[in-house]
Amino acid sequence: MKIIGIDPGTAIMGFGILDVEGQNLSVITYGAIRTFPEKTTAERLLDIHQGLEELMRKYKPDCMSVEQLFFNRNITTAMTVGQARGVALLTAAEAGIPVHEYTPLQVKQSVTGEGRADKHQVGYMVRLLLHLDEIPRPDDVADALAIAICHAHTCGTKRKLEISWR
Amino acid sequence: MKIIGIDPGTAIMGFGILDVEGQNLSVITYGAIRTFPEKTTAERLLDIHQGLEELMRKYKPDCMSVEQLFFNRNITTAMTVGQARGVALLTAAEAGIPVHEYTPLQVKQSVTGEGRADKHQVGYMVRLLLHLDEIPRPDDVADALAIAICHAHTCGTKRKLEISWR
Repeated sequence: MKIIGIDPGTAIMGFGILDVEGQNLSVITYGAIRTFPEKTTAERLLDIHQGLEELMRKYKPDCMSVEQLFFNRNITTAMTVGQARGVALLTAAEAGIPVHEYTPLQVKQSVTGEGRADKHQVGYMVRLLLHLDEIPRPDDVADALAIAICHAHTCGTKRKLEISWR
Repeated sequence: MKIIGIDPGTAIMGFGILDVEGQNLSVITYGAIRTFPEKTTAERLLDIHQGLEELMRKYKPDCMSVEQLFFNRNITTAMTVGQARGVALLTAAEAGIPVHEYTPLQVKQSVTGEGRADKHQVGYMVRLLLHLDEIPRPDDVADALAIAICHAHTCGTKRKLEISWR
């Protein structure tokens, strides 16, 4: 199963695509779609949409994983992130793949074992779990990979539960 | 010039398309794109996108008018409205038309002459200015028409200023 994790933003949209085979996680690709500040918001959202469409076409992920609505930042950030998040969700729906949402707490818990972990710890564990040579930069990319890992772990848990129920 | 005014939302996306000829405003069409609550957010954003694309193809507006980021509601609303707003801006960029943004204050001021006007007053004046038989419902539709009127008035003012500068 291929998972695309997304950390939405208008300036930088972090993404990470993982392949999951049972307990094994491997990285297919990761990076950031960056947009030009001199463009209008609408044009930047178009660039993000086209970038994501290209990733969908090229890597054909089976599902998208993204953080839920969050409540700990200011309202302008929420609106701006919302716009980019809307474009990401739209692209998933256009590609016909399901979207799985996790709270920041679930993501941190899943990757570091600790819901209050800081950015550095998340980056450190992402590197470790995915056997990368270095911590992916910027934070948006590490976060996108963390969200994809969170979904991989959650699917694994569900499978185990299903088995134990039989 | 044809203006499409948008009042973004995931459940209801209000729209109004006006034709502006000098001082004359006429209504081409207005209404709301409604989405099904039993669908996922991504699917609802897809329905909104397809609805807006259809309006773009059918009516070929020259520009889009939409409210700026607002600061007077809660953060969950901001995020949700942001997602729908992002899809509206994307659709404008895909259609290659510019987006004009106005604050709620500018919209109310432009339509009623009073920045603190309430919903009812806005609806009342939209009906009056556009010679409609009744106030468009729900509020999202009246608001979308108000935002389009605001842009029409602003363009008119700019033209007048340009002339007086000569």
